[in-house]
Amino acid sequence: MAGKGKSGAFHRRHLLQAGLAGAGAAVSSEVMAADPVPPATQTPGKPMSSYGVPSPHEANVQRIIGAAYPVVSPGTGSSRTPLHLLDGTITPAGLHFERHHNGVPNIDASAHRLLIHGLVARPLEFSIDDLLHYPRTSRIVFIECAGNSGANGAPQPPQTSAGAIHGLLSCSEWTGVKLGLLLEEAGIDPRATWMIAEGSDAASLSRSIPLAQAREVGILALFQNGERLRPEQGYPLRLLMPGWEGNLNIKWLHRIKLTDGPVYAKDETSKYTELQPSGIARQFDLVMGAKSVIIRPSVGMTVPGAGFYEISGLAWSGHGRIARVDVTVDGGQSWTEAELTGPVLPQATCRFRLPWDWNGKAALLQSRATDEKGNTQPTHTALMAQRAVGQIYHYNAIQSWQIEADGTVSNVHA
Amino acid sequence: MAGKGKSGAFHRRHLLQAGLAGAGAAVSSEVMAADPVPPATQTPGKPMSSYGVPSPHEANVQRIIGAAYPVVSPGTGSSRTPLHLLDGTITPAGLHFERHHNGVPNIDASAHRLLIHGLVARPLEFSIDDLLHYPRTSRIVFIECAGNSGANGAPQPPQTSAGAIHGLLSCSEWTGVKLGLLLEEAGIDPRATWMIAEGSDAASLSRSIPLAQAREVGILALFQNGERLRPEQGYPLRLLMPGWEGNLNIKWLHRIKLTDGPVYAKDETSKYTELQPSGIARQFDLVMGAKSVIIRPSVGMTVPGAGFYEISGLAWSGHGRIARVDVTVDGGQSWTEAELTGPVLPQATCRFRLPWDWNGKAALLQSRATDEKGNTQPTHTALMAQRAVGQIYHYNAIQSWQIEADGTVSNVHA
Repeated sequence: MAGKGKSGAFHRRHLLQAGLAGAGAAVSSEVMAADPVPPATQTPGKPMSSYGVPSPHEANVQRIIGAAYPVVSPGTGSSRTPLHLLDGTITPAGLHFERHHNGVPNIDASAHRLLIHGLVARPLEFSIDDLLHYPRTSRIVFIECAGNSGANGAPQPPQTSAGAIHGLLSCSEWTGVKLGLLLEEAGIDPRATWMIAEGSDAASLSRSIPLAQAREVGILALFQNGERLRPEQGYPLRLLMPGWEGNLNIKWLHRIKLTDGPVYAKDETSKYTELQPSGIARQFDLVMGAKSVIIRPSVGMTVPGAGFYEISGLAWSGHGRIARVDVTVDGGQSWTEAELTGPVLPQATCRFRLPWDWNGKAALLQSRATDEKGNTQPTHTALMAQRAVGQIYHYNAIQSWQIEADGTVSNVHA
Repeated sequence: MAGKGKSGAFHRRHLLQAGLAGAGAAVSSEVMAADPVPPATQTPGKPMSSYGVPSPHEANVQRIIGAAYPVVSPGTGSSRTPLHLLDGTITPAGLHFERHHNGVPNIDASAHRLLIHGLVARPLEFSIDDLLHYPRTSRIVFIECAGNSGANGAPQPPQTSAGAIHGLLSCSEWTGVKLGLLLEEAGIDPRATWMIAEGSDAASLSRSIPLAQAREVGILALFQNGERLRPEQGYPLRLLMPGWEGNLNIKWLHRIKLTDGPVYAKDETSKYTELQPSGIARQFDLVMGAKSVIIRPSVGMTVPGAGFYEISGLAWSGHGRIARVDVTVDGGQSWTEAELTGPVLPQATCRFRLPWDWNGKAALLQSRATDEKGNTQPTHTALMAQRAVGQIYHYNAIQSWQIEADGTVSNVHA
């Protein structure tokens, strides 16, 4: 077929020219024309409801709960977004990943306060009602845990779903008040170069954040996907730092203290540092790198036989917009640029799609994202050479899925 | 203050230049610097959960349930999105408006089939698994019921919330298969000019849709905001016709029949026609017009006193992208262009925002959207002159909110 490389990956233009039937995609059954009467038409349905929930037939679509570390409390660990069961780019709030250091506090918004203090001219305290009085802004932004995909750093790659490996990643529309507005109101002392943001969870999770960037991009988020924040996403107030490590997006935010340096909080020394082979740990490596993952197909799915498929997945970068995603089905011998559907927004996930006519022989699928700043993804080998054993953070290597002739998919280091 | 018109509405550039404090926005309290210890830090929180729900402190954020007509069955009516309690543009699926003609059927996706038949070369039947095999596309798109805002057509405008009046409008990211692909696979008979789409609810809701546009823009939606459709949004399959009347976005879709004309189904003769003053009814007026509504402030909110506020609301058009939204605070004597935040996408809601320094005197707030095709909103009087008494569909007149000196907000015809 014209336009199809020998690898079987189509350039997107040619699929549109050829039509899907020409690509061997038809899986429907030809039937006699008849006016069917489905059983559901025979009985009146359920009435309207005040807050909808998923179909009971989709009860398997759940967050994947796991303890990130040996359990110190029931609320210490994470749950992952089941990326392999979803499509598009927005994550429903109920399936947004969680990473808690001591559980989800139950906070009454009317009693919650935000304090801005430290190196400021006027320490200020805000109720949530105060914050709701300010101008707001909205952005569609991903949040990714620094430890996302870390399991791929193991010598034997995990044979688990794309969600179980990469699901410490979610994307929402967040709405709130620009942090810079409130910092200006408090009056920034010229000596202030960092700020400490602290949550009011039982871990008092706190992180040091460079002030200049926080002032420029930080948002005090009050709404997620239209509605007020969910408890496990920081209700009633979360610091949003678009593109930065997930844990900097402090949940249940109750204070911001301006300082002249980082405080080296327990959460940025015992965790979230990156040990190098030299024995020196890299600290405050805060922006999440360019990354992508093919989600369809991935481990747990079976490619039923030779023929047409759509390869699709997610790409994102903390540095800005995704510029392109290249896909290979032959382990890197040839690459084809995938289509990016929908708006491609800075610090947001975007969905890439590429038609693939599988010849039924073993294939090695990989995707490689490049962002607008030119950042791209290293190979697994190149990334691991830069890190000490056990270093799990900022793993953004190319994900490799091996497709066997029988259609099974496995996770491989390639 | 430079940049502020005599009406008090700021041009957005000047707010940024002046800083918020200069605009009189500060509502925080100055406090002594101290390191607070919120109560929530004293007790370990709740563990991770498999599917999150809103905070119990936000239990009032619900769809507004009402019967659109005298109740013929518990499942006949609508529920509205509480727009006045939300922000941003995405509607969480649990709060997406509903309009059911005989309830929400309980459908097992594995038993559901889509039939494409009528004037086609090959009638085809698809299971949901079949459809999931095809290439997909994603779009952020609003759906608006043709009857949305119809209550404003009454001589006395309703004194209810923005959601209660305009909440038959929601916006989601939808993902599915392009309808055109499947129509081409079935082989379109040259005589086919329309198609009939039918739902498998107990009302067998069916609509005639011009084939050319359906082929071009129609999507067989399987996912909403990342996850599979909710039952009340058509699980497992919905026809998405971006920008067209909500009822054309057939839920629980089970067949598409190609025809050489409309069928004049009960749902497009007893309802969804527009009676003109001449006594002639306009039929198949299918695209939703340019529209906007100020949501903050609106009825039910109180503007507590002179000072700084943000006016914000939603704008949308079935014809394409919103090009601009103009806002007046003096009943149309002067208009100021509002800022559109976030990506402005075709057939999607966008959020407009405008700073306003209220002088504490009576004010009349209005917004007027203009889309990229030049469509805009009529006044209430101009719109009503075109329609017979009781005609509720396609009401897209300018919404007027009267602010009294005591800060109360009322809905007025102006």
